[in-house]
This record gives sequence, C-alpha cells and structure tokens, in this order.
Amino acid sequence: MEKVFASIITIGDELLIGQVVDTNSAWIAQELNKNGISLKHRVAVGDVRDDIWQALDEESRAASLVIITGGLGPTADDITKPLLCDYFGGRMVVDQPTLDHVQKIFARLNRPFTERNMKQAEVPDVCTVLKNERGTAPGMMFRKDGVVYVSLPGVPHEMKWIMENQFIPLIPQLFDTGFIEHRTLLTYGIGESFLADRVQELEEALPPHIKLAYLPNYGIVRLRLTGFGFDKNGLKKEIEERFQLFKEKVKEFLVADEDITMELLVAKLLQEKNETLCTAESCTGGNIARMITANAGSSAYYKGTVVSYDNEVKQNVLGVKEETLASVGAVSEETVIQMAESVRKIMNTDYAVAVSGIMGPGGGSAEKPVGLVWMAVAGKGRVVTREFRLSYNRARNIEMTSYHALNLLRIFINENR
Amino acid sequence: MEKVFASIITIGDELLIGQVVDTNSAWIAQELNKNGISLKHRVAVGDVRDDIWQALDEESRAASLVIITGGLGPTADDITKPLLCDYFGGRMVVDQPTLDHVQKIFARLNRPFTERNMKQAEVPDVCTVLKNERGTAPGMMFRKDGVVYVSLPGVPHEMKWIMENQFIPLIPQLFDTGFIEHRTLLTYGIGESFLADRVQELEEALPPHIKLAYLPNYGIVRLRLTGFGFDKNGLKKEIEERFQLFKEKVKEFLVADEDITMELLVAKLLQEKNETLCTAESCTGGNIARMITANAGSSAYYKGTVVSYDNEVKQNVLGVKEETLASVGAVSEETVIQMAESVRKIMNTDYAVAVSGIMGPGGGSAEKPVGLVWMAVAGKGRVVTREFRLSYNRARNIEMTSYHALNLLRIFINENR
Repeated sequence: MEKVFASIITIGDELLIGQVVDTNSAWIAQELNKNGISLKHRVAVGDVRDDIWQALDEESRAASLVIITGGLGPTADDITKPLLCDYFGGRMVVDQPTLDHVQKIFARLNRPFTERNMKQAEVPDVCTVLKNERGTAPGMMFRKDGVVYVSLPGVPHEMKWIMENQFIPLIPQLFDTGFIEHRTLLTYGIGESFLADRVQELEEALPPHIKLAYLPNYGIVRLRLTGFGFDKNGLKKEIEERFQLFKEKVKEFLVADEDITMELLVAKLLQEKNETLCTAESCTGGNIARMITANAGSSAYYKGTVVSYDNEVKQNVLGVKEETLASVGAVSEETVIQMAESVRKIMNTDYAVAVSGIMGPGGGSAEKPVGLVWMAVAGKGRVVTREFRLSYNRARNIEMTSYHALNLLRIFINENR
Repeated sequence: MEKVFASIITIGDELLIGQVVDTNSAWIAQELNKNGISLKHRVAVGDVRDDIWQALDEESRAASLVIITGGLGPTADDITKPLLCDYFGGRMVVDQPTLDHVQKIFARLNRPFTERNMKQAEVPDVCTVLKNERGTAPGMMFRKDGVVYVSLPGVPHEMKWIMENQFIPLIPQLFDTGFIEHRTLLTYGIGESFLADRVQELEEALPPHIKLAYLPNYGIVRLRLTGFGFDKNGLKKEIEERFQLFKEKVKEFLVADEDITMELLVAKLLQEKNETLCTAESCTGGNIARMITANAGSSAYYKGTVVSYDNEVKQNVLGVKEETLASVGAVSEETVIQMAESVRKIMNTDYAVAVSGIMGPGGGSAEKPVGLVWMAVAGKGRVVTREFRLSYNRARNIEMTSYHALNLLRIFINENR
C-alpha cells in the first residue's frame, strides 16, 4: 500500500486577479486529510482552455485524485464542462435527474426556465453525476488511467455539500488510504527559534513518517506533529508517546495540548465553572464579539457587547465619566477600566473585557499614536489593564487587539483558579 | 511587447493540510495586476524539497516572474533558503545589513541572540536582498534565463511590506509591462443566467483583448470587464465605451458602477447627507459592526452597536418589552422593531438596523427553525422589516444575514431620497 496523493485545481480568473480569496482549497485539504489522503499540490488557473488542459495533464501525473473546482456556471466565461467532456472523450447528454432538480429550483424561485438553463442539466456521458442539492450545477466524477477526477462548483456551500454527501462516502471504495494523525501543542511567551532549540533533540529523533511543524501566529507558536501509517492504532500510540515528550519539554509555555482557537480556549475555561462574559469594544468594532459568537453554543457563556464607536455612546450607554473623556481621553487606562466595570454591571456577568485604541491609518497624534491600545479585564473583584503599541495596518491592528484581549482574559481567568 | 505573466508558489505543509487559508496569493495577484502583470498560475506545495524544485522548474517555463512565499523561518521545517541557494548555484553568506537588523530586533525584544538566529541573516550570494523592516527573514531576488524570482516570507504583513516597499518599485526596471483595466457593475435582483441573456449581444461583440466575467455572491451579481493593452489611454477609453453600453443594458438592476463592498456602498450613502447609523445585533453577534468599522473613517457615520446575545440584555439595555419576549419571542418582527427603534434613540442616529435570528446548528424548533431571521431598519419616521429563511451552516447564515441587513438599509436609504 502506498500513500494516496491528491491535487486541487481551482479554475477562475477571479482567483488570479485576486478578487476572491480561495477558502475552498483549505477546506478540501482538511477533509481529504481526515480521510487519509495527502495533498500534493494546489493549483489555480484562469478561465483559459489550454491552461486548464495542461493543469489536468500535470496534476494527473502527480496525484491519483484530482479535484477541480469552479467554472461550472451557466455563462460564457464558464468553460470547464465542455472542456472536461473533450478531455475525457465524451459527448454532452442531458442528465434527467439533474434536469428535474434544476427545473424544480426554477419553479420554486418563480423564474422562467430558458435554454441556457437547460445546459446546466447537461453532463458528459462518461461521468458519474454527483448530485448537488444546493444549486443547479452538478458535480461530476471521471476515471482515467487509474486517476479519479472530481469536478465541483466553486460556490463554497455547494462544493461542501457535494463533497460531504456525495464524494467523501465513496473514498473507501475508490482508494486504499492510510491514516494521517495530527497532534498540536500551543505555546505562548517563547519565540519560534528558542522553542526549536528546546525541542531540538526530540525533533532529530523523530522517525521519517512523523514530521514536526512550527506555526507562529500572534505570539502563539503551534507545534504540530503529523504522522502517516497504515496501522491506525499503532500510529496513534506512537504519535501519542512522542507528543507527551514534546509537551513535557515545553510545559512552562504550554497553553493547550490540542489545536484550538483562542476564543474556544476562553469558552472552555468559562464553561468549566459556568461563568459568563460580556465585552465593551471601541476600536475593535465588534470583532471580539464576532469571534466569540462564531461558535455555536456561545450564548451559554456570552451575553453581549456594547460597541461604543462614538464617545457619546461611551457616556450614555456605558456611563464613562465625561471628565475622564475630557481629561485623559477615550484611549486611556481609566476609560477602559470604566468601560469594563460598567458593562459587567449592565450585562450582569462574571467577567468583562474592554478595549479602546487607535487602529489607523488616521486618528493618531504625537501623544497617542496610531496603534496605541488600552485594554482591561474586570471580574471577581479585580481589574487588570494592559497597554499595547501595535504597528500594523488597520485590519491587522484590529485582529491583534482582539486576540490579545482574549489572551489577557485567558490569563486573568487562570489566575483566579 | 508581450503580456508579462507571473506565477505564485506558496510553500508550507500548513497550506496542504488546510490549517491556513492562503490570503497572500489574492493580495499579490491584485498588486501585480495594478502594475500590469497578469497571473498565470498559483501553486501551493508542501515543505518537500523535490516538490519545490519541480514547481520552480515548471513555473519558470510558464512565467517571467515567479513569486515564492513561505518557508523562510528559523526552524528545521523551513527548507526554502538552502534550496534556493542550490537552485541558483550560490553559496550562503552573511548579509551584514540583515545581521544588523536582526540583532537590533533581538536587542529590542530583550532576547539572547543564538546561532540559530545568526542563520536568519544568511542569504545566497547570488541574490539581491530585499530588506524586511517587519521581521527577521529578508526577501531575496534572483534572476536566471530571463526569469525573475522573488522569495518572500509567508507572514502576511511582512510579505506585504517587502512587496510594497522593495519589489513593486523595481517592476518598471525589470519588465515592459502593459496595462490592465477593470470596470465592474454590481446588479441586484436578477440571476446570473438572465443577466447573461440580457447582455449576450454586447458580450459577443467584445474584442479578444476585453473579457467579461460574471461573479455572483449573496444575490449580487458582479459584471466585470477586463482589458489588456499597451496604450493606456486608448485602452481606458475603449473599456469605458463598452462599459457604458453594459451599464445601460442592466440599468433596472444596477446597484453600483464600481467594484465596492455593500458596507462601503452604505457608507457612501450616509456620508452624502452627513447621516449616522447604529445597529442592534443578536444573531450576527457583532459581525455587522465589524464589517462597517473595518473601514477607516467609519466613526464619521457609525456610532456603535449593542449585541444582545442574551434576552436580559435585550430587556435591560435595549428596552425590549418583557411581554414581547414572552409572547412572540426574541426572533420576531415585533422584537426587531423594538430593538431598532430603541437603539436609534439610545445612540441618537438617523438610521438603525436590528437583526435577530437562529443561526444554528442548535436552537431551532418546529415553529422557529434554524435559519429564521427577522430584521428591521428604522429611521426618518419609518420602519421596515423583513423575514428570511436561510438554509446554510452557521458561518454562512451569519454572513448572509449581515449582508442582507446592509442591503435592506441601502434600499431603505434610497427610498428616502
């Protein structure tokens, strides 16, 4: 048995001119990984016949599964379907179940069914149709010279539906896959190179089928062990043993022994003791709330936020004192303390986080430059504050501030235990 | 003169196992486009020497500029720098300006400077160093057989800094680029295939150097004309003429004649008349506020939000009546009307938007299923409401709700003009 490799080809000029960020590939990669298939390559090409044809040739040499996304719409810039028909030597035929499905969608939307839409139900006669319950363009599977090709629409929720419901269940019949195991440690407070020095011996002793990766982001460095094998339980055990050695080596800096986001780490801490949280955001404009509420079930521990983008709102809703705003200003230790304590009272929670800062590019001064941020965490009769001076662009300043605020809360909660 | 093509190679296992979404490529593509360079290919490969080598070979046949990101860190899984040294036949030497810079960073962080860090200042002697003011890994430029290669760190803000400050200014000396022009129309209320029928004649009459693309998303369909030429003014004029014809053809459905986000469209409308906005969000958890405040200068028209994730907050902060919550519930027309009117009073704005819904996967009932959303816009003595029934996953339900709420506001403001 050998490792099964896949390639992803994404089709569309919008990817090449940068109008769209490709989130499909990361999702597909994760799903394939869970099913024992490793990704070899990801390629993006434009809506150009020769380039797509060449990519199909090249990727079929590198992989035994080629996943193609995009280019399946009803308009003239969508050239993938006829191309695939030629590539696999078929002819276009109407697929009756797809036609019924497309007509049903049009009837539901109360739209006339035109000849152009008829084309959406045509597929090459050499493919296996993968039904698309979420849209009009069906998925298609082809086989040639031992390689499996899957063509999927580029619209993320349609692509995901077909993968989850139509293609992934077929993987065990199509391939003899092995198993891929990941284990991840999160560390905080130590740089990537110092971490590397610390685990050097362990890293050098790893067998060839286990790899170590360093993934630094926002001051957190993730250490990830990835192993591959055909004996699932043996692999699990082997990775687990190595993992414990790494964990022991970095214990002073350990944040978590699983791959988890900062917002879920905080959520776990709160849920352990049935505690609740609220926030008062100025410069992050609701981003902290969004991060927390992106997780299902967050209403169990998160009550809400007041985004006081305007000073009037800081006074009227959050009760920040007029003289504080007049004397030390909105971006100050005193203001974030008042914001945190006040929102905690208003929303009646165990903890509150408040942030205020200048995210740029405008709004800075000599005394309070762009990038200056104050944050406070209040709760359990205590309040802590921290000042940051960030030097990125607006988007990253917002991201970093949100992340640091959640990390400050994480440390604060741990100190109370 | 010929069109200049570029390829991007992104290096890193994290891209292949889907741990990271590649946002770098879209950004690089946009910047190259602005500078007259078209992207031919984007390829992602793992931290595997042979795969990287092969990608360099293949992409140098397809493009005259190859941009490589990632794999430049100080740890053992970062193999790009020695590989590039071999590929271009150089040997590693210490670059003094880089060494000074790295040492300065370590001194500032108060961290000891180890031998491993010394390596970060080494570069192949056959490269031109592209200074990295944002981090320790320098960019590198190589030239071979008429192809230019640029190696950049994968950390987005470092990569961007080097591109903007070091590489892009060199483009006019390195290449005879042409000009690329995009013009985009936004339409709402007409499906992609009907739009295609409507503009079919205009599309068929386009010359080969002008392409039309359809980009549907959230009910908005973008129509984008892209032209390429060496006579900048001639091209601009030609695209403009075609653009006006398309615009006339779709005028009943026209939202904007420029490529602009929904949140900036709303911002423009508000700024035209010096009007202000606030929001009250339940199910979107701050995402609408985040979208609006992501734009610099939003404090001029946006005052804030109350995210009432908990019903207590709906009552205590937003003054939603207890009997309303008890009788028709939090996800109801009556509740969003009260939320919108109340937050508009509290924050003293011209308009207010309120949303309440069930984003899933849990929390639904037979009467109020997952995906049910109510939204209201209040202002100028009027209030409008709308009900949606979405059927996506949580993340997309939040995204769609936020987008539809801003679109409802856009229509509302336009009706008041």
